[in-house]
Amino acid sequence: MEFLKTAPDIYLPGVSIDAVIFSFSNERLKVMLLRFATISQYSLPSSYIKKAEALDSAAHRILQERTGLKRVYLQQFYTAGSALRNLNKTALKTLENFVGKLPAGNWFQQRFVSVCYYALVDETKIVAKKEPYVYEVKWFDVNDLPRLVFDHRETIEKALVRLQMDLDQNHVGAILINDAFTMGELQKLYEAIHQRKLSRTAFQRKMLSLNILERLEKKYTGKAHKSPYLYRFKKQIVQAAGTVK
Amino acid sequence: MEFLKTAPDIYLPGVSIDAVIFSFSNERLKVMLLRFATISQYSLPSSYIKKAEALDSAAHRILQERTGLKRVYLQQFYTAGSALRNLNKTALKTLENFVGKLPAGNWFQQRFVSVCYYALVDETKIVAKKEPYVYEVKWFDVNDLPRLVFDHRETIEKALVRLQMDLDQNHVGAILINDAFTMGELQKLYEAIHQRKLSRTAFQRKMLSLNILERLEKKYTGKAHKSPYLYRFKKQIVQAAGTVK
Repeated sequence: MEFLKTAPDIYLPGVSIDAVIFSFSNERLKVMLLRFATISQYSLPSSYIKKAEALDSAAHRILQERTGLKRVYLQQFYTAGSALRNLNKTALKTLENFVGKLPAGNWFQQRFVSVCYYALVDETKIVAKKEPYVYEVKWFDVNDLPRLVFDHRETIEKALVRLQMDLDQNHVGAILINDAFTMGELQKLYEAIHQRKLSRTAFQRKMLSLNILERLEKKYTGKAHKSPYLYRFKKQIVQAAGTVK
Repeated sequence: MEFLKTAPDIYLPGVSIDAVIFSFSNERLKVMLLRFATISQYSLPSSYIKKAEALDSAAHRILQERTGLKRVYLQQFYTAGSALRNLNKTALKTLENFVGKLPAGNWFQQRFVSVCYYALVDETKIVAKKEPYVYEVKWFDVNDLPRLVFDHRETIEKALVRLQMDLDQNHVGAILINDAFTMGELQKLYEAIHQRKLSRTAFQRKMLSLNILERLEKKYTGKAHKSPYLYRFKKQIVQAAGTVK
């Protein structure tokens, strides 16, 4: 197998990147997962880091390879480093279906420390990459995840906790919502991320008090019987939200 | 040099841990730094990860080795992974002063990805470890840091941003303050971490509205002319603050 021969020269040993790619559509917070042929569990997109490549650059490269998107909002949030993180038997067997028997102690089976990033993207703009190993690319509601390999469920949970912090403190919701929205639509976004219902009046009062929104002249005209105001995030809030700390 | 021979068998290649150890004393937020003999810049305490050791366990081991403290509050907050993170010339020269000339491309000079943790400790309980390489162990006000090696200043800045988030969202200040305190003392802690003056009345109103404090029967009796109330964090807040997510 060519990759196994060249990988030790190209990539850092023992370090990988896992990406939790979030989108918001149909009032749901979703995460993009892959399924590899012959494995029933789903996986987060992941990859290795080139020897002379910064971690952040590697994360952007992986996102672009997987989604076709450049300059995506990416936030590093966690590094998974339990002592048992190496390729499990099922994954190894699947890999061997493609490449033939691998020698014991091969590069893939070393212990990997995985640096985890979450991304905020627009699901409709994604062009998923076709690869021989990847059988399926699918979006799942974060409340209805399938079975996942390794510690990937825990990784998604940690990503969600960090996203909740970033939503409240840095208003990263601005990245996930349309340019103009009603207060009701904004509330749906906050509810999807915080995973609980919020009071309509308390939410509106809180949002307006933060001084991060501006009300548009134009009203929402979808329903004839009432026309709620449209809002957008202030320009400096959108910019600050997109600046990863 | 013995360590150079044995290190590749004992430690993961290319991964290290840096620790930002914070304490709060004399109304100042401080960070513990080391200075190695013959290097004028200071360093964060750091170490390598054993091959069968979880990242979190390695971080706790390092904290215990450096401070003598067990079960310290530790929060992983960032992994530094620029492409240029390897032992610089000054550090290499210093190391060679102790161990003799090292071969080119030795274990220390590989590229390291560094997983960064911050710790909250009580400075008065620390017993700093004596080591031949460590010339000085010293606490610095975060607002008055000395020159630091590598990217360690940036690491401290990132630790502080995360500590600010954890202070507001998880009330980790409970770990840094005495069991009983006046509202004024609590305000000094929040001001030291947020690095700005806060309004006394707004701070008190905010703190009481969060429902995280309880007022003690006993009043503070340090000054004869007035006796402010004493408070403590509610038990469940202290417990939740200490539970690392």
